Amino acid sequence: MPKKRHYIGIDIGGTKILAAVATPEGEIVARSKQKTFPTGASTESDPMALARRIAQTAQAAMAKAGLAKGDIKAAGIGAPGPTDIRTGRVFNAVNLPGWRNGFDLGPVLRDLLGLPVFVDNDVNVGLLGEATYGAARGIDDVVGLFVGTGLGGALVLGGKLRRGFRWGAGEVGHAYLYWPGKKPLDIEKIASRGAISQELAKAVRKGKSPTLSRLLAQRKDGRITSGVIRKALAAGDPATRKAVARSQEALAVLIASITNFLDPQAFVMGGGLVESLGEPFLEPIRDQARDLFFVRQRVEEVQIVAAGLGDDAGVLGGVALAVEQTGGLKRTQ
Amino acid sequence: MPKKRHYIGIDIGGTKILAAVATPEGEIVARSKQKTFPTGASTESDPMALARRIAQTAQAAMAKAGLAKGDIKAAGIGAPGPTDIRTGRVFNAVNLPGWRNGFDLGPVLRDLLGLPVFVDNDVNVGLLGEATYGAARGIDDVVGLFVGTGLGGALVLGGKLRRGFRWGAGEVGHAYLYWPGKKPLDIEKIASRGAISQELAKAVRKGKSPTLSRLLAQRKDGRITSGVIRKALAAGDPATRKAVARSQEALAVLIASITNFLDPQAFVMGGGLVESLGEPFLEPIRDQARDLFFVRQRVEEVQIVAAGLGDDAGVLGGVALAVEQTGGLKRTQ
Repeated sequence: MPKKRHYIGIDIGGTKILAAVATPEGEIVARSKQKTFPTGASTESDPMALARRIAQTAQAAMAKAGLAKGDIKAAGIGAPGPTDIRTGRVFNAVNLPGWRNGFDLGPVLRDLLGLPVFVDNDVNVGLLGEATYGAARGIDDVVGLFVGTGLGGALVLGGKLRRGFRWGAGEVGHAYLYWPGKKPLDIEKIASRGAISQELAKAVRKGKSPTLSRLLAQRKDGRITSGVIRKALAAGDPATRKAVARSQEALAVLIASITNFLDPQAFVMGGGLVESLGEPFLEPIRDQARDLFFVRQRVEEVQIVAAGLGDDAGVLGGVALAVEQTGGLKRTQ
Repeated sequence: MPKKRHYIGIDIGGTKILAAVATPEGEIVARSKQKTFPTGASTESDPMALARRIAQTAQAAMAKAGLAKGDIKAAGIGAPGPTDIRTGRVFNAVNLPGWRNGFDLGPVLRDLLGLPVFVDNDVNVGLLGEATYGAARGIDDVVGLFVGTGLGGALVLGGKLRRGFRWGAGEVGHAYLYWPGKKPLDIEKIASRGAISQELAKAVRKGKSPTLSRLLAQRKDGRITSGVIRKALAAGDPATRKAVARSQEALAVLIASITNFLDPQAFVMGGGLVESLGEPFLEPIRDQARDLFFVRQRVEEVQIVAAGLGDDAGVLGGVALAVEQTGGLKRTQ
């Protein structure tokens, strides 16, 4: 086996750290995982403790693959917050207390692993994974839309992540809904799972959704998750239908506007709501968006598809980032 | 002088054909012009007659420069309609009767001139000129917005025109204004000079703008041109102020949404309305747009500027296209 043929991808989740060793073609040869906070202490304030667990997880995957440092070309990692790809600094990881005020994740892991380490935000990394190994494999120009608590976005153009002049590209949740006389409204305030949940919580408080009230009574935390939304839709709850349809319409208009401006080949849609609701969520978006395309040629060829990497999205995204940053994959493979 | 050091740019206007011979750095060494329709007969139906005048204009510019075919590397031309850059075919030039049902402009001029000829639509060519020699010279990522009868757009990324998967990129006039419960509305129906004129024609019919009624009484054609709009603003006409402010706000929201999605370094704004109203039109757009940028770093560094090439926009755009298509300009110059 030639030297430096493999890459490591790392996924830092709220509950688990995942690491995988893979080929540049995205074939995973070994995996490893451990808890993000072993004691359940997500209040851990030492920033280095988490960094050491991340390095250990990566080293465990290397050991399982029977590979040494010299066999690995680079590691890639998606950070849960805004990141400077050039320095590897995570500015503000709101869900990780030790990193909340910034952490030099790239340099620290480089020291701990003795390898080149590349860091970007997890939305960028997720889309790069899909564009390299997943639902948009081999497609050069792809827009990613991730519908969760917020509406995240990312952009691959010419096979490379577009990061923007001020490292601000992809903040598509802050594209605006606007109508003359109205105040511009961030689209994520209508289209995200978070926005749907807020709208539905209001309906529950007003006693307007007996179905949701019943579903929430079965949960300790009372949270309107993507799973609750799926069950309420299946039960035909009118308030849920209405809030979800509003999100779908806003997403369709967004996809059409982006198409008329940028004309990409594919949209990959992911995030908790898309994973939970699946095709029945995407189908009306696809139809409504295509109806609004200005150029009427080859409308059906513009793909609007669900993300395909599932639980491997984070680690394969990390691999794709490391590959991209060390010279890229031949796109003709 | 080395061989094939020069380029020809050609601009087909409604009244004039302009041609210029220039260096790849955009220095014009000779110009030539003639009427688009010498007899005033814009109903001319022979598609070849206009093509021959275009070739003659280009040859006259070469003769003035003292250059022969062998000194010219290529010619570039912006066509007034949707164009296939690969074949040089203009599909539908609505204002040129002989070409209304399509015309193989590139191949025909190639034969007439004996030179490589590149054709793209005039909005793309105009922005490429600005990004290469004009207001956004040396900037790699530039969005062009042209406010006229419609709202035209174009996109230069990495120093190259982005044409799109279906050759549909840049149709930014068909980005949508949208609000839950409303039907999506093409932004050009609010933001273009054409939309402002329609709105004001209504005000005149209802007797709500004595200022405009007076200005229009001075014109034979009764048209609410960019010049009329400028005069009505100068006279403090409330209806005109309102319609222009509505266009400005929609353009500001569009620029902010594009910035949050793509984070380009510059927006170049042109077209009849911008040329006529100038800085007083752009300043509120710039302020409102920047207020809506999601990433708050370096907000002032994102340029929102007027096009700078004036009457040379078309010919220098043509030169830029020919340069781009024959290998490009070193962007570090």
